Amino acid sequence: MTEKKGRASISYGEPPRIIGAASIVGSKEGDGPLGHLFDVIEPDPKFGKNTWEEAESELQLLTARKAMEKAGMNEEQIRYLFAGDLLAQGIATSYGIMELQIPLFGLYGACSTCGESLSLASMAVNAGYAECAMALTSSHFASAEKEFRFPLEYAGQRPLSTTWTVTGSGAFVLAAAGSSYAEGASVCITGITTGKVVDYGVKDSMHMGAAMAPAAADTIYRHLMDFGREAEEYDRIITGDLGSIGQTILKDLLRERAIELDGIHEDCGMLIYDADTQDTHAGGSGCGCAAAVLAAYILPKLMRKEWKRVLLVPTGALLSKVSFNEGKSIPGIAHGVVFECV
Amino acid sequence: MTEKKGRASISYGEPPRIIGAASIVGSKEGDGPLGHLFDVIEPDPKFGKNTWEEAESELQLLTARKAMEKAGMNEEQIRYLFAGDLLAQGIATSYGIMELQIPLFGLYGACSTCGESLSLASMAVNAGYAECAMALTSSHFASAEKEFRFPLEYAGQRPLSTTWTVTGSGAFVLAAAGSSYAEGASVCITGITTGKVVDYGVKDSMHMGAAMAPAAADTIYRHLMDFGREAEEYDRIITGDLGSIGQTILKDLLRERAIELDGIHEDCGMLIYDADTQDTHAGGSGCGCAAAVLAAYILPKLMRKEWKRVLLVPTGALLSKVSFNEGKSIPGIAHGVVFECV
Repeated sequence: MTEKKGRASISYGEPPRIIGAASIVGSKEGDGPLGHLFDVIEPDPKFGKNTWEEAESELQLLTARKAMEKAGMNEEQIRYLFAGDLLAQGIATSYGIMELQIPLFGLYGACSTCGESLSLASMAVNAGYAECAMALTSSHFASAEKEFRFPLEYAGQRPLSTTWTVTGSGAFVLAAAGSSYAEGASVCITGITTGKVVDYGVKDSMHMGAAMAPAAADTIYRHLMDFGREAEEYDRIITGDLGSIGQTILKDLLRERAIELDGIHEDCGMLIYDADTQDTHAGGSGCGCAAAVLAAYILPKLMRKEWKRVLLVPTGALLSKVSFNEGKSIPGIAHGVVFECV
Repeated sequence: MTEKKGRASISYGEPPRIIGAASIVGSKEGDGPLGHLFDVIEPDPKFGKNTWEEAESELQLLTARKAMEKAGMNEEQIRYLFAGDLLAQGIATSYGIMELQIPLFGLYGACSTCGESLSLASMAVNAGYAECAMALTSSHFASAEKEFRFPLEYAGQRPLSTTWTVTGSGAFVLAAAGSSYAEGASVCITGITTGKVVDYGVKDSMHMGAAMAPAAADTIYRHLMDFGREAEEYDRIITGDLGSIGQTILKDLLRERAIELDGIHEDCGMLIYDADTQDTHAGGSGCGCAAAVLAAYILPKLMRKEWKRVLLVPTGALLSKVSFNEGKSIPGIAHGVVFECV
């Protein structure tokens, strides 16, 4: 039976199944440790378009189509789309998915949007509002640098605490447990923990791991309390894009609450690049980071039953150019999603 | 029984109740025809803060608190918050509602976000994921002008097709039909129709009514088809912020489909200002426009049973400064929400 747990969690009785997942990335991601796992590696950073924003829209559209293809479905069969990106007013999404003509819920949770979209899509499917729904997110290195930091032409120096925005997108087709679409699907979303805004006062936009780690710690802590579980009951607890410095902070924060993540924690941002050889400093980031790693790396491990239960916690830094220039801190948010194989 | 209808609609079996609604606006809105209906008219456009963005955050926080006060609730009793605004990366929301510490789903649907937030909040409450949830949106004239057009200091000329962004916010507390919170509440959300992105190629950001009218027409048409109803079965069909020119376009577009809105249609943007004396040209706009008019004007009419059934269709123009400067068209989206008194 589906039930509310604690302050912010839901446990699904008949968990929605993931019946299709796709990842498309750029060449830098293709050169990284997970390169052989992505569905498509696109060598043209503009994806055949004229601007970085159009490139990201095309990336999102291609990924949505690839996920439908893998699920053996067309857009008429997807009832709702839960989608977002990092750009102001979500333009990568608005322009990208237009031609699919699927009813859209536009989302913004910074890099946590992957978790937010999977949460809402699973809620909709589990409640019977849709037999199938799609969760879709993207990021693009060049559009994000322009949006949040400097145009690439400036060749700005990057401190070692920065992360590198992933050019990538992940799309997920969810189907209701009892539906014919779900037959044979072995990975499901068994629960969610919805994040709240957490602000420790970090103001450095070149150090987003520090800004987001407190939100990740809060969501992981509340998730374990709400479900009455120990961290060891997960094969992995995987954050979105804290990077290597954020990971250290996360572990320290949870250790204060007697939760030990050593040996259990991974971070999509640390998995997607080889920081030593790819000059990505603290790791990868962006809506597309957690989404692409989930589709290419995490879900296949669950399908092969190498892992039985994973908590994915995409993390978002809720800043804008304006808030940064006005001297505001960078609050974080993190949404937890539990994946299990059945 | 809750059931899916058509391509994008849901009809609720035990419709979620609206147990608290609040509106806070600026002085220009207070001087308008609905001025006597808003809960609070704040004379200071900065809401006691230093920047326009902080002002909008404060506006959103105050409105959320006022809605909880009117519902006799505190933030601990609100399980989920569905919220958004017009600013890049939703910073009015992220900073505004931080201290409430309610688990947050951040949304972006431009000025349609009011409809999107009410759709998702009603879906969550109807499915039993929350006994109570809040939908919250805001806009601020000065932060929006800076975000989408020119800084106020430029004193830019405004063509007659422009709308005036409402400084205002609306907050709505929804409770599950069977819950103790819902006792005595007489207005409910009986159904929703979720919009898809519609683009007729309009590129003029000073003519948003024309950009959004096709999306409104699409959602209204699909709503009537999905529910098998005639327009006359609604006391009013009320769009968010098409303004006077957009209204004409909407009526023309629906007339082509044999739907006549004369005598049934109103537009929140046309209701909130007196265009003749307030220099607002085509009307009001912004996430806060539909939200404040819903809380102050539409819901009370339903509570007094002057109206029995209203379809509210907040409309959004999915542009950003970047997309505009790159010469892109302005796609629209519109989300329909049905309110009825019981």
